[in-house]
Amino acid sequence: MSANEVLPKVLEHIDRDLDNSVERLFAFLRIASVSTDPAFAKDCKAAADHLSADLKSIGFDTSVRETPGHPIVAGSAKGEAGKSVLFYGHYDVQPVDPLNLWDTPPFEPSIKTVDGRKVIAARGACDDKGQLMTFVEACRAFKAVTGKLPLPITMMIEGEEECGSSNLLPFIEKNVAEFRKDVALVCDTGMWDATTPAVTTSLRGLLYEEVTIRCADRDLHSGLFGGAAANPIRILSRIIADLHDADGRVTLPGFYDGVAELPADIKAELDALGLTAEQFLGGVGLKVPAGEKGRSVLEQVSTRPTCDANGIIGGYTGEGAKTVIAAEASAKISFRLVGTQDPEKIRTAFRAFVHERLPADVTAEFIGHAGSPAIQLPFDSPSLKATRDALAEEWGKTAVTAGSGGSIPVVGDFKRVLGMDTLLVGFGLDDDRVHSPNEKYNLSSFHKGTRSWARILAALAE
Amino acid sequence: MSANEVLPKVLEHIDRDLDNSVERLFAFLRIASVSTDPAFAKDCKAAADHLSADLKSIGFDTSVRETPGHPIVAGSAKGEAGKSVLFYGHYDVQPVDPLNLWDTPPFEPSIKTVDGRKVIAARGACDDKGQLMTFVEACRAFKAVTGKLPLPITMMIEGEEECGSSNLLPFIEKNVAEFRKDVALVCDTGMWDATTPAVTTSLRGLLYEEVTIRCADRDLHSGLFGGAAANPIRILSRIIADLHDADGRVTLPGFYDGVAELPADIKAELDALGLTAEQFLGGVGLKVPAGEKGRSVLEQVSTRPTCDANGIIGGYTGEGAKTVIAAEASAKISFRLVGTQDPEKIRTAFRAFVHERLPADVTAEFIGHAGSPAIQLPFDSPSLKATRDALAEEWGKTAVTAGSGGSIPVVGDFKRVLGMDTLLVGFGLDDDRVHSPNEKYNLSSFHKGTRSWARILAALAE
Repeated sequence: MSANEVLPKVLEHIDRDLDNSVERLFAFLRIASVSTDPAFAKDCKAAADHLSADLKSIGFDTSVRETPGHPIVAGSAKGEAGKSVLFYGHYDVQPVDPLNLWDTPPFEPSIKTVDGRKVIAARGACDDKGQLMTFVEACRAFKAVTGKLPLPITMMIEGEEECGSSNLLPFIEKNVAEFRKDVALVCDTGMWDATTPAVTTSLRGLLYEEVTIRCADRDLHSGLFGGAAANPIRILSRIIADLHDADGRVTLPGFYDGVAELPADIKAELDALGLTAEQFLGGVGLKVPAGEKGRSVLEQVSTRPTCDANGIIGGYTGEGAKTVIAAEASAKISFRLVGTQDPEKIRTAFRAFVHERLPADVTAEFIGHAGSPAIQLPFDSPSLKATRDALAEEWGKTAVTAGSGGSIPVVGDFKRVLGMDTLLVGFGLDDDRVHSPNEKYNLSSFHKGTRSWARILAALAE
Repeated sequence: MSANEVLPKVLEHIDRDLDNSVERLFAFLRIASVSTDPAFAKDCKAAADHLSADLKSIGFDTSVRETPGHPIVAGSAKGEAGKSVLFYGHYDVQPVDPLNLWDTPPFEPSIKTVDGRKVIAARGACDDKGQLMTFVEACRAFKAVTGKLPLPITMMIEGEEECGSSNLLPFIEKNVAEFRKDVALVCDTGMWDATTPAVTTSLRGLLYEEVTIRCADRDLHSGLFGGAAANPIRILSRIIADLHDADGRVTLPGFYDGVAELPADIKAELDALGLTAEQFLGGVGLKVPAGEKGRSVLEQVSTRPTCDANGIIGGYTGEGAKTVIAAEASAKISFRLVGTQDPEKIRTAFRAFVHERLPADVTAEFIGHAGSPAIQLPFDSPSLKATRDALAEEWGKTAVTAGSGGSIPVVGDFKRVLGMDTLLVGFGLDDDRVHSPNEKYNLSSFHKGTRSWARILAALAE
């Protein structure tokens, strides 16, 4: 068979085999691999064993690799092309409580019809068992049709994504040669909407600081000292207020160094999506974007850097009135980063910004939390183009190149430790209720997701 | 005896009778009249009975008047002059814990020598048993020397000052005719320093508001929504920051309506005291006054109005980092008032100020706490002049006319319900440790305090 003949047969196989694919996913979903609760450690091991055996059955030399926590399923299969890929996913799932809010038991998967669409209902149906099985089923179809994979594939399926992935980075660092491939593929993100595929091409970085402002050496009576004593809540409020100008831009000197405008064609594509602020914010009770003036809501949450106060506390916070001037007040302040913004430079700038605003007698103490730069897949990456073309073939629509406002730490690890870009392609939908009761995955996401990966693997193998 | 002959004899009697006066105070101090703890209800009753009997013995028709809480000792004695006075004090005391920090048991009073000065050590030695007994002992001396009091005196000694005085106002309102006198006298404040007497002529008022800023209808992930979602901590911080200008003045429109400058002579007297910021703030770890520019620290804490944030909370305040945008944040904001500032006008102005600063989608909810105007004894009051002259005679120094930054609610009640000004004269010192372990009252405060009241009563009777 020529390459041109293979793909249609693989897709045909996927369609024909769908019921069996769903049955295999169900078997996987029945394993209660809740990673954060030690009571489910055996189930996590069982899920790893199950997945490893399944991958072996389609030609991977996988094994269950021990870590200080839950094991990692890893191994490779040979393939035809010279290019190689690493696929990352996770077999662990979120806890299920509150159990009484589930319509059917979380580990008894079933097909239901919701709003006229068939969905797979179970904990992990989407995140990430259903998603990672789209990739596995695509591999299985190639194996069934051609007896082999279209390109060499290495698997890395961890069991601690839902509880911090604390053993993953050491594992990657110990096995650099094994996992350094041409590109990484991850199926743990979402579509633009139910009919529009997406590739997540950027992830914002994060710089998180905690600052405590100290004034008097004790809490003071505001009647006796009010007027003369420095008030840490006032000083902290001033600092937080000063962090943005009237146009919603962050005022830290040098903050926008490394923040580039989007390429015109990408910007045009994003604008063409026509996402309204109401659509984006309506679900959480808001309507009007609160960010940088002159930027669309999509830019504000994905391609632009931000600053947010994530927490603040000081003085009396119980019921009623207490006339106290607090000795100290503190806040947690974080910055979402894009482009090549340098987290440590911004940390330094933030601390200087605070110090410049301290009146006499007043001190500031800092706790430095996370600092990670943004991830940006180059817009001219050939792998990205091949993937977008493959997705467009399957869905009949251009794949959105979305930026994600949040961070996925493993993508940063792949870049930093393995020097490897990551293609984030997933088929989740906003209403999949991941991490909540009644998690589901649309049957179309599962079916067309599998077909999508078949197309992507074929395209990357060219 | 002419009036001119009486006072020297009364003072002489006070000096001669000092040991007995101290013994009588000790008997009162031995009663553990802790008002806030129901376990001591019997002791409170015992203290009221003890005091009422003592007052009866010097000619008052006192009785122990029941309230829903601890009783009030009240009654009158006739006197020579046409002018009449009401004396207010309280027989209840603060709890004593932590008991292990007391050098001697709190209800076993004794005379000790501390830093070369004799002090009376016990719970209540100053606040308020020792202070109110200076007035009682002055009355007793008049009675002993002349067989009568120099002017009609009505007593009102409550037992719930340390736990909120919740039954006092209804008692006053029910007995207006009985307690409406020419002027009220209170002995529950302090001296300027150990050798300089003071009359507290103003008490700042208070307006206390709680505001909650609400944005989204749930907490949001700052990665996914950061940039587009309104952040209540930012909005609240901006409001708090906006409440002061760069000169430390409050920016609420109309805030300074009713705030007058001090009379030049009073201002000159205050300036002559030479209180430095270091003296006032040094004890709490501060050096530089943080209030209105161009005002002395004494003005800032007593004769000028202020605004303070007393508490703030929002978002994640536990350990570590959480990337949340809170749905709401709240703060407690209070204003100390002087002159004729109207608390309710300021409440309205504050709420309008907040509303003007709310972006789209954002709401504010308020809880109105205390609102009470400032109290100002007219500087040209004849009673004030008589009292200051009497104090100057006793101490050999001009009595400071101090403003107190805090409020004493009963003084407001006397003004509002009884239409009566109050002269606040007390002999407490900053190091008396009221409300703390090892409370004390200098023997000189007790002795010269008694002599001071004798002089004041004589002067008011003229």
